[in-house]
Amino acid sequence: MQLNRQVKTTFLSVSDVRHLIEREGLYNCLAGMAQDIESDFLHWKEFRKSPRTASHTKDGVIELMPISNARQFAFKYVNGHPYNHRFGLPTVMAFGVLADVATGAPHFISELTLTTALRTAATSAVAARALARPGSKIMAVIGNGAQSEFQVAAFAHLLGIQEFRLYDISMDATRKLVDNMRHMGLDAKPCANVESAVKGADIVTTLTADKNRATVITPTMIEPGMHLNAVGGDCPGKTEVHPDVLRRARVFVEYEPQTRMEGEIQQMPAHFEVTELWQVLARQAPGRSNNEEVTLFDSVGFALEDFSALRYWKTLAGHWHVGQRLDLVPQLEDPRNLFACLRMGQECEV
Amino acid sequence: MQLNRQVKTTFLSVSDVRHLIEREGLYNCLAGMAQDIESDFLHWKEFRKSPRTASHTKDGVIELMPISNARQFAFKYVNGHPYNHRFGLPTVMAFGVLADVATGAPHFISELTLTTALRTAATSAVAARALARPGSKIMAVIGNGAQSEFQVAAFAHLLGIQEFRLYDISMDATRKLVDNMRHMGLDAKPCANVESAVKGADIVTTLTADKNRATVITPTMIEPGMHLNAVGGDCPGKTEVHPDVLRRARVFVEYEPQTRMEGEIQQMPAHFEVTELWQVLARQAPGRSNNEEVTLFDSVGFALEDFSALRYWKTLAGHWHVGQRLDLVPQLEDPRNLFACLRMGQECEV
Repeated sequence: MQLNRQVKTTFLSVSDVRHLIEREGLYNCLAGMAQDIESDFLHWKEFRKSPRTASHTKDGVIELMPISNARQFAFKYVNGHPYNHRFGLPTVMAFGVLADVATGAPHFISELTLTTALRTAATSAVAARALARPGSKIMAVIGNGAQSEFQVAAFAHLLGIQEFRLYDISMDATRKLVDNMRHMGLDAKPCANVESAVKGADIVTTLTADKNRATVITPTMIEPGMHLNAVGGDCPGKTEVHPDVLRRARVFVEYEPQTRMEGEIQQMPAHFEVTELWQVLARQAPGRSNNEEVTLFDSVGFALEDFSALRYWKTLAGHWHVGQRLDLVPQLEDPRNLFACLRMGQECEV
Repeated sequence: MQLNRQVKTTFLSVSDVRHLIEREGLYNCLAGMAQDIESDFLHWKEFRKSPRTASHTKDGVIELMPISNARQFAFKYVNGHPYNHRFGLPTVMAFGVLADVATGAPHFISELTLTTALRTAATSAVAARALARPGSKIMAVIGNGAQSEFQVAAFAHLLGIQEFRLYDISMDATRKLVDNMRHMGLDAKPCANVESAVKGADIVTTLTADKNRATVITPTMIEPGMHLNAVGGDCPGKTEVHPDVLRRARVFVEYEPQTRMEGEIQQMPAHFEVTELWQVLARQAPGRSNNEEVTLFDSVGFALEDFSALRYWKTLAGHWHVGQRLDLVPQLEDPRNLFACLRMGQECEV
C-alpha cells in the first residue's frame, strides 16, 4: 500500500486577502512583504530566473512570470490593459501559484490583483531605502491611479515621507487619491502640473499607465540628489522618462535581461550601464555615493517579488487560518490508477 | 458612472469534471474533445504559438504552456515527476485557465490532471484517424500506467479498435489496466514482452514514463503499414523509440519547434523531415500514402490541445450548470480605485 500523501491546495480569495490586511494592518503587510522581498533578493543567485513571457495585442498584454528556487516554483498570471476602465474593469488583474519543486504539486493559489499593488509598492520602498537620500521627506506622485495609494502608504510608513505632492492628468484620479489618503490620515498636496509637483521633491514616483512612449519627466525637472522611482514604464513601447534623465542618473534595475526589454532603459543602447538592485542590497555594488547624485529605480516588476508576496501570504494564511481548500488535484488511492477516479460512483457511464 | 462589467471566474474542480464525464459519458467526452481539437488544429494559423517554458530539476519538470487566438488566451500548468508514485502522488498534475484577450480577465479555471489524460488520448485518436491504416483492429499498448485507460477508450470508441495487447514492466500496472478495461466492457490481452504485444498490431501506442533515453521500440519490431502512436517520450532526454524506427517511418508532429526539443526526433538531426499534423488534417500535406508505409505520431502534448479541452469543458459546464464562482478578481465600483476595496469594512486598519 502506498503512502497517500494527498495534495492540499489552498485558495486565497480577494476577500481572504482583504481579511488578512484587516487583521495585520496595511502598514504591517507592506513592511512584512518588503522584508520578504529584501530577504529573497539577498538569495538572488539561488533563483532560476527568466524574463516573463508576454503576449501583446492592440488592447494590452497578458504575461506569465515563472521563477523557482530549489524548493518552490512560483508563477504569476497578470494582464495590463490600459483601457479596461472603459469596461469597468481593472487595468491589471492577477493571480499566482506556489508549487513544490520536488513533486510539482500546486499547493497555494492566491489572488494577486491587490497583492501586485502591495508588492510593487513594497519593492519601490526597498529600493528607495537603499538609494534615496537619507532623511528624504517629500515625494512627488505623478499618476494617481490604482497603484498610487499603495506607493504612498509604503513610502509614508517605510521611509517616513511626510509630504506628498500629487499630479495626474485626470483631476478625478487625484481627488480619489486625496480622499483615500485622508482615510489613512495622510496629508496630500494636489499640484497644477508635473513641474510644480516635482520641484523640491526628494523622491519622484511615476505611475502613469498609458501604453505609449510618454515623456512625463524631462531633464529640466531633475534636481541634484533626487531619487526617481519609475514604476509606470513596464513594457515594450511604454516609457515615462526622457533619455537624458537616464543619462544624468545612476540607474538600478530588478533583473537586467527583462528590464532591457521593458523598462525605461529600452530607450538606451544595450551597453548603457545599470546595476541590479540585489547587488546593492548584498553590498556587492555601491548604491548612492553622495547627496548630489541622481538615482533612478527603473522598476518593471519581477517574478521574484511575487514569489516573496505569495510566501508571505501563505505564512499569514496559515497563521490566521484563512483560505479555502480547492479540489484541484485528484486524490488517488493508487496514483498510477487515475482512471479509478471515474469509477468511484460505482457506475461509470462509458 | 462606469458600466460595471464584473469579472466572473468559474472554477471547475476535479469532482465537477468527474460529474461532467458521468453526465455525458466518457466516450462522448472523448469524441467531443477530439472534435474541438480537430477544429482548432484546422485554424492553426490563427493561433499565437510558442514552445512551452519548462523548468527542469533532477526530480522532474514544471511547465507553463500558453497559447492564444484573437479572442481567448489559455495556459496550462503541468508537472511531470516520474517518481511521484513513491509519495502516493500522480506523475502528472495540471490545471488550466481561459482568459479574454480583449480585457485580460481570467474567466475559467479548471483541473487538467484528468483532462490532460483525456485530451492526450483524444489527440492520439485524431492523429490515428488521419494516419493509421483504414480498418485497423489491433493495438499494442506498451506502458500501462495512468494514461493507458484513456488511450484504450479513445481508440476503442473513435477508431473501432477491437483487440488490445498490453505490456508493462510492472505486472501490477497491466492488472490494473485489465481490470479497468473489464469495467469498460473491453477485452484485454496481457503479453509477456514488448515483441509479442507488438507483433501483428496495426497500431502501437507507447506510454512509458521513465525520465531517460529508453529504447522500447526497436527496428526489428516494425511491420509494414504499422502506425506508431509515440506518447511517452515528451521532454529533453526522454525517448522511447530507436532512431532507426524514426528513419524507417514518416513522422508527424504537433508543433515542430517544440517537438524538436522534446519529442522522439530530439535524437535526429535538425533537418530530419517531419510533417505537422494540422497540415494533414487541412489537406495541405499528404498523410499515409499506402498500406505499406509506416507512420509515427511523435506526440509531446501541445498547448492548443489544452485550449480545446478548456473550451470544451467551459461549454459543457455552462450547459449542465456545473462549477463554482471563484472570488479571484476584485469587484470594484471604480476600477481606478483599487484601494477602495480595503475600505469596504468602513474602517481600514492602516
